[in-house]
Amino acid sequence: MVPNRPFRPEPQGARDRLLEAGVKLVRRQGFAGTSVDQLCSAAGVTKGAFFHHFASKEALGVALAGYWSTSTGGFFAEAPYHHHARAVDRVLGYIDLRIALVGGAPEEFSCVAGTMLQESFRTSEPIRRACEASIMGNARALEADLAEAIADAGVTGTSAASLARQVQTVIQGAFILAKSQDPAESAATGREALGHLRRYFELLFNERGRENAP
Amino acid sequence: MVPNRPFRPEPQGARDRLLEAGVKLVRRQGFAGTSVDQLCSAAGVTKGAFFHHFASKEALGVALAGYWSTSTGGFFAEAPYHHHARAVDRVLGYIDLRIALVGGAPEEFSCVAGTMLQESFRTSEPIRRACEASIMGNARALEADLAEAIADAGVTGTSAASLARQVQTVIQGAFILAKSQDPAESAATGREALGHLRRYFELLFNERGRENAP
Repeated sequence: MVPNRPFRPEPQGARDRLLEAGVKLVRRQGFAGTSVDQLCSAAGVTKGAFFHHFASKEALGVALAGYWSTSTGGFFAEAPYHHHARAVDRVLGYIDLRIALVGGAPEEFSCVAGTMLQESFRTSEPIRRACEASIMGNARALEADLAEAIADAGVTGTSAASLARQVQTVIQGAFILAKSQDPAESAATGREALGHLRRYFELLFNERGRENAP
Repeated sequence: MVPNRPFRPEPQGARDRLLEAGVKLVRRQGFAGTSVDQLCSAAGVTKGAFFHHFASKEALGVALAGYWSTSTGGFFAEAPYHHHARAVDRVLGYIDLRIALVGGAPEEFSCVAGTMLQESFRTSEPIRRACEASIMGNARALEADLAEAIADAGVTGTSAASLARQVQTVIQGAFILAKSQDPAESAATGREALGHLRRYFELLFNERGRENAP
């Protein structure tokens, strides 16, 4: 698996070019800091074309969360970790893939939905809901494997849905810690955080002794 | 410990009133979405007073990260969990305090430094550095207890500094997941995430069997 392999095909048409520009600009400078003019300039479309496709910048934000989850969801659905026979290996395989994808600068591996949520959760209910759908959809895709791993290992006191949310928690937190660092250290900081998520799951699912090195 | 007990004394003077307005507005609507006019209005000061104290909005952002870490750092330094005899109990006591502080809406318990980092990490190097100092300073305050807990339990393959960063990772991620939810569900979602951090540390430090309910 190649880190930072593009999730998305080359955009065709003004609408997809605007959404692709949205991915790039939101990851780099946030949603509030990105103007319609910047989106049009990055996409190479006119302001008229923008407002033909989106009623407002907020409407683009809502569509962007959907575009993001559709494209990333497709990427993970096709990833090879699904072929492991044991459920716990599929869960750890997903985490290993997430670790492999953390490379380069934060704007190359960060989450569009988590970025938009951080500063828009209260100011735009449509964007909050769209980002919730994106992140929780991503979480739900892990639930079947987690439920099977929980049953196999006899884990009690939690649920597949709760552990799936925790995967997203650590991914989102890893991106914040990565962004806190000098760009040369960002990716290693993000991978370290996901490594602790792996170790938690190994302990929980009885896959390692506490004494082993990671 | 009362959730949402104010970390900070009533602000005295225009500078502190502007910083306190910054805490409130950045938590609610983000840094990019907050204007100098809004800061002045919320603080009840003139624009002239703003630019007497801060050369720019960016300068306020840098000062805000420092103000945030000084006031939150003081709160945690005085908290009662430090009195536990065993290092692991002090570490778990810190997590329990963080859990107790997650109540109400996200803008009441979220992190000013993590919020600013999310959308400003690439556009303002001074803000990134100030937020790094805030979050990593918070992390370093846990390192001595973590080092002692690691030695007591014979944990290998990680370090006090790495586990301290993971505490911050899960806290920051918990705030993003909380923000993704309807406000009525936000706090419970944040506490759930910190509960998994607690369980990870209990497993790592050999404080519970894998079979116990949380």
